[in-house]
Amino acid sequence: MIRPANTLRPILALLGTLCCTVSVQANGSDLMVRIAEVEVQEAALEQYLATVKEEAKASVNLEPGVVSIFPMYEKASPTKIRILEIYASREAYESHLKTAHFLKYKTTTLEMVKSLVLVEMDAIDSETMSQIFKKAGSKAP
Amino acid sequence: MIRPANTLRPILALLGTLCCTVSVQANGSDLMVRIAEVEVQEAALEQYLATVKEEAKASVNLEPGVVSIFPMYEKASPTKIRILEIYASREAYESHLKTAHFLKYKTTTLEMVKSLVLVEMDAIDSETMSQIFKKAGSKAP
Repeated sequence: MIRPANTLRPILALLGTLCCTVSVQANGSDLMVRIAEVEVQEAALEQYLATVKEEAKASVNLEPGVVSIFPMYEKASPTKIRILEIYASREAYESHLKTAHFLKYKTTTLEMVKSLVLVEMDAIDSETMSQIFKKAGSKAP
Repeated sequence: MIRPANTLRPILALLGTLCCTVSVQANGSDLMVRIAEVEVQEAALEQYLATVKEEAKASVNLEPGVVSIFPMYEKASPTKIRILEIYASREAYESHLKTAHFLKYKTTTLEMVKSLVLVEMDAIDSETMSQIFKKAGSKAP
């Protein structure tokens, strides 16, 4: 039985690492996708909606690394908010956290928020994401 | 103290109705937004992902009334799928249910799906939705 010599092992390990790197790069990007689930105090709902709307708009308009911030509310329970957030990379997200508009949103809404769950997601079809959103951009009001 | 005469009440009620109608029309559209939460059998996951990817692509490419179908999975539990679905109207959605690609997806995945919850949503900022998605379309891979 032939076993790889000890000297071969680091080379095999390196090859393994290279394969992984290639596959991650081929997969598209460092894109960060998540859904934030926010439950808001009922009395503060109107103010929260105005604040999150302003923050989403500023982020999309001012930050190149913010691919999308799309806030929605549940029709049956309007105090339950879900925000689809997509950042170009973790660095873009870290930089978003330091912007004046995000900090204003965070401090303004701190007392309005009952609970916050951040669900990290990944796109199933990252190859045709831009095609999907281009269509949405041309069809949405 | 002056009270509106009984004869005035129907007129006031009618004015109220007209105001509501105007506000709903000004709000934009009949857009239908929802998040489907699908839990998939672990053994069928790979096949499910391929099937939903194909279905989303066909819907976005072939149906003018499909604004977006964007499938994601939870990073921590990849069998938990969430699909952001946006249709131009309820009619567009009803017509989507009759397409060959949707029917193929539905019958192929029936046994793969453990649970399905449909959460009806509404965009918080329907005025700038197209702006949000245009940005996403230009920035996503």
